[in-house]
Amino acid sequence: MLSTHALDFFTTLLGKENVYSDKAHLIAYSYDATRERFEPEAVLFPRHEQDVSDILKYCNEHKIVIVPRGAGSGFTGGALPANGGIVLAFEKHMNKILEIDMQNMVAVVQPGVVNMELQRAVEEVGLFYPPDPASQEYSTIGGNVNENAGGMRAAKYGITKDYVMAIRAVLPNGDIIKAGKKTIKDVAGYNIAGILIASEGTLAVTTEVTLKLLSKPKMTKTAMGIFPTVHSAMEAVYKTMASGVTPVAMEFLDNLTIRAVEQTYHKGLPVEAGAILVTDVDGNLEEDLDFQLDVIGRVFRENGCSDFHIAQNKQEASDLWFARRNASQSLSVYGSKKLNEDVTVPRSALPALLDQFYKIADKYNIKIPCFGHTGDGNVHTNVMVDGKDPEQVKIGYKAIEEVFQATIDLGGTLSGEHGIGLAKAPYMGMAFTPEEMALFQSIKRAFDPNNILNPSKMGLE
Amino acid sequence: MLSTHALDFFTTLLGKENVYSDKAHLIAYSYDATRERFEPEAVLFPRHEQDVSDILKYCNEHKIVIVPRGAGSGFTGGALPANGGIVLAFEKHMNKILEIDMQNMVAVVQPGVVNMELQRAVEEVGLFYPPDPASQEYSTIGGNVNENAGGMRAAKYGITKDYVMAIRAVLPNGDIIKAGKKTIKDVAGYNIAGILIASEGTLAVTTEVTLKLLSKPKMTKTAMGIFPTVHSAMEAVYKTMASGVTPVAMEFLDNLTIRAVEQTYHKGLPVEAGAILVTDVDGNLEEDLDFQLDVIGRVFRENGCSDFHIAQNKQEASDLWFARRNASQSLSVYGSKKLNEDVTVPRSALPALLDQFYKIADKYNIKIPCFGHTGDGNVHTNVMVDGKDPEQVKIGYKAIEEVFQATIDLGGTLSGEHGIGLAKAPYMGMAFTPEEMALFQSIKRAFDPNNILNPSKMGLE
Repeated sequence: MLSTHALDFFTTLLGKENVYSDKAHLIAYSYDATRERFEPEAVLFPRHEQDVSDILKYCNEHKIVIVPRGAGSGFTGGALPANGGIVLAFEKHMNKILEIDMQNMVAVVQPGVVNMELQRAVEEVGLFYPPDPASQEYSTIGGNVNENAGGMRAAKYGITKDYVMAIRAVLPNGDIIKAGKKTIKDVAGYNIAGILIASEGTLAVTTEVTLKLLSKPKMTKTAMGIFPTVHSAMEAVYKTMASGVTPVAMEFLDNLTIRAVEQTYHKGLPVEAGAILVTDVDGNLEEDLDFQLDVIGRVFRENGCSDFHIAQNKQEASDLWFARRNASQSLSVYGSKKLNEDVTVPRSALPALLDQFYKIADKYNIKIPCFGHTGDGNVHTNVMVDGKDPEQVKIGYKAIEEVFQATIDLGGTLSGEHGIGLAKAPYMGMAFTPEEMALFQSIKRAFDPNNILNPSKMGLE
Repeated sequence: MLSTHALDFFTTLLGKENVYSDKAHLIAYSYDATRERFEPEAVLFPRHEQDVSDILKYCNEHKIVIVPRGAGSGFTGGALPANGGIVLAFEKHMNKILEIDMQNMVAVVQPGVVNMELQRAVEEVGLFYPPDPASQEYSTIGGNVNENAGGMRAAKYGITKDYVMAIRAVLPNGDIIKAGKKTIKDVAGYNIAGILIASEGTLAVTTEVTLKLLSKPKMTKTAMGIFPTVHSAMEAVYKTMASGVTPVAMEFLDNLTIRAVEQTYHKGLPVEAGAILVTDVDGNLEEDLDFQLDVIGRVFRENGCSDFHIAQNKQEASDLWFARRNASQSLSVYGSKKLNEDVTVPRSALPALLDQFYKIADKYNIKIPCFGHTGDGNVHTNVMVDGKDPEQVKIGYKAIEEVFQATIDLGGTLSGEHGIGLAKAPYMGMAFTPEEMALFQSIKRAFDPNNILNPSKMGLE
């Protein structure tokens, strides 16, 4: 437990309204989206960067563990205080959009800013922040940067790391550093921002992020295609993108997912189809959108698409997106417990990956419905089991291990979006060699020699 | 000097045709584009990754310095063996394009592949590798990645780091690692590729790079505008980009540069103009290019552009680019020695930066003509002095120091494209705090505890 000395130090520094150590609050900050629970010993709300520096300096001297936390919406336990210690939370004070700079098209924000709040603010002035994780309504930029969040628009617009121009951060010893600038080009010094992205709060505490913005595309259109097989759908995806058309989103549902949505919502979906693709295109010109949709329609039909439909208005677009939007919650028809992963392969390997998944499902007599982002090879893989049957749950986890192995064998990654945290830490040895793990560990040590910052995450000490 | 034991080891490993230790060859590998000279003790040509690993393992055990070298076209001495030791060269064997993967739109290349060779190969199959450093005809991908090379197209397409998906590399101890994948999304483990980019060969030796490709835009058009002042030109640039048009290139020449080109080539350039902007737009549709040029023309005229000209064919486009293409060599009218830097500021700071530069020039009674990339704030800054007058050269270097200080004061960086190497190492303390330098040093130590890999670069040990 935290010493009285430590609590006194934090209370004097921050004021008692910014130090929580009562049971109710400790419970409130003990969980994230994984449903695992670990109680911190205190929750601190720094008012500004200097507070973060003072807290870290103290904790480093006294070897007190610090876990930075965004919205607690992570799927892998990155923000859980698995070793106790202090949770550092940014939602009270360090949650401001500091600047939207029109001339340089960048935003400067504090870590506690909610993704969607930023999206809305920049769109009001005609700009655009593309990364749109499913958690966008509540997850924060600090969390997005530390997990390198993706989203639907990744196929065209990339992911969080493609928008981070600079990070201000506090090192475990309290040193304040700035990495990067408001410039597109900067090749002076090591690319510290590059390594802080996706580091899951294990190397430094982010205090400010400078993000690249784009000009907001003036229009978006939606289309849908029905394919006999996943293979034919994927063939259409490659050929579309090689034809010079990069859709904003290119999402798929496999046959099992289509059936689940139909069984739940009765929308008249084609339950014999191998796959449905739903796609958005955007741009500034009607002619450009029509050109993109012409190419997509032609390529889709050349690859076996039996039904290609372009939404004529917003309502139709929303209808076309209905199945994809409601995919996840429909899957309970296959089991009460969903073990969902976000494995990612090079997009060409997607059909082979799904073949492997269905083989694993057959072997264990369970269902593994899949949907997700064909444009970038990111598959939401759902191992469905009966949550009340411990034997089934055990089988589910065995299947997950095989899902990971199949992914890695096809050149893929354990996680496209959710990170490693605690949940996937046991699988790091499947994905990385001992030499690579040793390198991670030595980088961790270089930043954090006393290992006070979010220890035990990512398979590290 | 290298021991006989070491030379024997390398000769046995690689064959004598892949080990140079004669004077003529050592001289040939002693220089780069800086004109500084440092002779290595041997030049080795690894045949494959395992050779690189064996060489590094041996050198690490025997504390022999290794300097990886691309084409030796760097402007800052990154490839110079300033501490002697071994130059590792890739042009003989490790110079192959291993794969152009159409389905995933990626290329896998060895470090010795020349940038333009890759551009040509991918364009032949309808794909596009945008980074186009001025050295593209000879510089290699290994060098481009380690210096994070930019180019003209950065305003729209970004720089080398925006295209690196994965790097295979050998650590100083001989360990072979793979960082990244052929996937757009990958959030497992630290972003090692992110920190290797721009690390100037100080952390690991790159043995293979996986690069993202785009679909090749079907057409390009060129336009030029003449502006009364640099300020009015820059105002036009911000407003163009905020209007949703992102030109491929948006290049400027200041008044001094315009005069120098006119004096040299007599092309009838407007010698009273404050700035000329030359811009390329690209896309897949005639209508889209016309839309972009309409916006640019309107915004240019609204901001004082007196003459807006759109090239009607390739010859006219080439004519519009003439002044920019011949800017650098024309500047000798102002002095026989050119101290050129590639400082970069947020693009909004560009007019203020040039004002500062002209003040510095006045103070020392020299000329500092500037041209470069307005889209990304990267200014080719040319301090012109009489090379035969040692007093003038000293003054030139004093001016350079003030150029850097003005850049840093305006939120800019010492280098947008060329890196730090040896040439800019003395200025690192102006740009980074002691805490930031200490972090760089600790990262260097984490990768390379014996400091065998390209020591003394970037202001590090």
